[in-house]
Amino acid sequence: MRFVDLIEKKKKGFEHTKEEIDFIVSSVTKDTVPDYQISAWLMAVYFQGMTEAETAYFTDAIIKSGEVIDLSSIGSSIADKHSTGGVGDKITIILIPLLASCGIPVAKLSGRGLGHTGGTIDKLESIPGFKTDLKISQLIQKVKKNGLAIASQTKKLTPADGKLYALRDVTATVDSMPLIASSVVSKKIASGADFVVLDVKYGSGAFIKTEKDAETLSSLMTGIASKLGRKFNAVISSMAQPLGRMVGNSLEIEESIDFLKGTSTPDIKELTYEIAALTLIHFKKAKDRNEAFNIIDESIQSGKALKSLKKLIKSQGGNPDVINDFKLFKQPLYSFEIKAEQDGFVNNIDAYKIAYACKLLGAGREKKTDSIDYSAGIKLNKIYAEYAKKGETIATLFSDSEEKLSLAEPIVKNAFEFSDETPAERKIVYKVI
Amino acid sequence: MRFVDLIEKKKKGFEHTKEEIDFIVSSVTKDTVPDYQISAWLMAVYFQGMTEAETAYFTDAIIKSGEVIDLSSIGSSIADKHSTGGVGDKITIILIPLLASCGIPVAKLSGRGLGHTGGTIDKLESIPGFKTDLKISQLIQKVKKNGLAIASQTKKLTPADGKLYALRDVTATVDSMPLIASSVVSKKIASGADFVVLDVKYGSGAFIKTEKDAETLSSLMTGIASKLGRKFNAVISSMAQPLGRMVGNSLEIEESIDFLKGTSTPDIKELTYEIAALTLIHFKKAKDRNEAFNIIDESIQSGKALKSLKKLIKSQGGNPDVINDFKLFKQPLYSFEIKAEQDGFVNNIDAYKIAYACKLLGAGREKKTDSIDYSAGIKLNKIYAEYAKKGETIATLFSDSEEKLSLAEPIVKNAFEFSDETPAERKIVYKVI
Repeated sequence: MRFVDLIEKKKKGFEHTKEEIDFIVSSVTKDTVPDYQISAWLMAVYFQGMTEAETAYFTDAIIKSGEVIDLSSIGSSIADKHSTGGVGDKITIILIPLLASCGIPVAKLSGRGLGHTGGTIDKLESIPGFKTDLKISQLIQKVKKNGLAIASQTKKLTPADGKLYALRDVTATVDSMPLIASSVVSKKIASGADFVVLDVKYGSGAFIKTEKDAETLSSLMTGIASKLGRKFNAVISSMAQPLGRMVGNSLEIEESIDFLKGTSTPDIKELTYEIAALTLIHFKKAKDRNEAFNIIDESIQSGKALKSLKKLIKSQGGNPDVINDFKLFKQPLYSFEIKAEQDGFVNNIDAYKIAYACKLLGAGREKKTDSIDYSAGIKLNKIYAEYAKKGETIATLFSDSEEKLSLAEPIVKNAFEFSDETPAERKIVYKVI
Repeated sequence: MRFVDLIEKKKKGFEHTKEEIDFIVSSVTKDTVPDYQISAWLMAVYFQGMTEAETAYFTDAIIKSGEVIDLSSIGSSIADKHSTGGVGDKITIILIPLLASCGIPVAKLSGRGLGHTGGTIDKLESIPGFKTDLKISQLIQKVKKNGLAIASQTKKLTPADGKLYALRDVTATVDSMPLIASSVVSKKIASGADFVVLDVKYGSGAFIKTEKDAETLSSLMTGIASKLGRKFNAVISSMAQPLGRMVGNSLEIEESIDFLKGTSTPDIKELTYEIAALTLIHFKKAKDRNEAFNIIDESIQSGKALKSLKKLIKSQGGNPDVINDFKLFKQPLYSFEIKAEQDGFVNNIDAYKIAYACKLLGAGREKKTDSIDYSAGIKLNKIYAEYAKKGETIATLFSDSEEKLSLAEPIVKNAFEFSDETPAERKIVYKVI
């Protein structure tokens, strides 16, 4: 088989066989094909797509390119969740203790990633002392003992995806449905989970802009997973506005703690309950959505969920006192309050602009080697449908430099839209697949 | 400017600015962009195309990536001709002496190339002693003295195209109209000619399969040339069947000599006269096609054209006696005659199959470093519309090995189609642009 013929085949719009897909992925893994041929093939895939069958073969080959984690010694099915990425998205941090407190074991592998804030792992590491570089044996041990644990992703999982992603990133071939789908699904399956809820986001703060595309990607991912013998659900949700009130690293941990204490914005509640309920039903902890919602309510009101979080923090070396004292997080050197210039209801907060400002404040990284300012970020004092009087604080910016604050300030101001009338009630979950 | 953003821009179908195109080509020339980004961009160009303006900028940038030959010291406008490549295409070899004998100076740079036979340079080098590695100063000197000369292309011309072509070849991005057009036009302009006739071929033996695509490419090339201040004409001609009776290296020289002696197949005559006439009219040697045809007739009948060829061969170190004694060419070790299995008119000879067989016989090269068997090839004893009686020889194969003959034989046999009725008269020139 010659790689150039496979490029030609895909370029012409033909479907690859399983053998061809295996050859492509093994060539990538073993470094027996030059990058310039891979990138040409990736661009051809961008334009011609891959069928669900091809994408499933591709996903399977990527899984087999590295280690597949075996969590069976935990002695129970394992739940997992994945988000395609959003602004203020701390749902994973809330879900881990919440599900664990409902009796569903969670053994999670998560990434750092590049973006306007760190990934889930970075956010958790903003808790003083919290460690995530666990061996798989340690992860399993902790899940057995406490019902939950989280570790940073090992490079031994899906190495072909690692190489492909690095190449896609510099060749403008990230935004291809089959490539995104295979990347996500392969990582989740290699991580050893039995059941996964995918949170597929669309809108200005997500890389997918429309409901339609989110739906296509969701169906593709659940379809591939099913072809590979796993059950995945997808929740399609809007990322037009940031999720909740906090965008940053430790700021999002604070908001997650508040949630587990019973205080939440409507959007976080809607999405968390939806994902948690799907999981509870799948694990037969609840027979329907109503029962699941009651179980979740009870878990939060009783303090069980918060207790799970405390266990998680303690078990991974973190200081659990942060739960009751947010001052124990690293504190920002500077802050700036943006005031409303007139009376009105918040009608929209553009997620992309908030993300961009957050990156300027220092909450994310551009390159893998960049360090993150855990305390940097944005608090939205006023969110959708809330009323602000002229002069009231609508957002607070945090950073380690005044210059960064002044760069971010006009962008955050600009992200807000106001109206005189009460905005309509807003649902962010568009569909469950 | 980041290269990845330019890939993204082209991927989305936007038009590059002149500055962007210059950046792309200079990045290629200076090796400041990795091949994997170039190949992703090339594939995006394959799918999204380039406008005529973009392609002209691209062509201009490629020209400026290397030397541009200055032939002005010859003291006259210079004619050139380019073929997109066909089977049995020896028109250049005929045209050089023919035009020179009509008083039009020809200073030609030509390539070797990969294919079923060698390029024009290889074919000429099948003449014992013929040398083509001339310096530009030598080329000019010879043109001044004899009115004609031919040299093998220097690597100093259009180096960006050299790099791009090498990458296109291994990334399935050869067949893109703007990339083909810019490659051809840049090389012709850098070679210093003022007026160029492009012979754009379509059909089974050409890489362009349809009249429509040939027309698109022709308009694009003449359009770009015009934007860059040059006059190019294009002759669109069919390559469904091989051109003439001979396919090989020395075999094609023999057929060219025969043409200049006054013996020709109708297709070679039609195409040669068309291209020569366009040139004569452009150089004001003839006021119209009729007058041009008369001048060409006269040049051949008087022996002037043949004399020009003799001059060319002598001037470049070759043995001019080949003109009268074809035995002076390297002779093939083996030959094989294919006989007609029934009576009938030749209705079609598939050019692709003949080319494929010719390569098997050893007439071409696969890699740049392969050597060519000058004597290998195919003589079509019967061509389109000719009648063969059962048992008559329809084709003769030449090679240095009996094994190659036996590999090629069924393919050549299979290339022939016969009919009981006289086939319709065949015109191969489809259009002149």
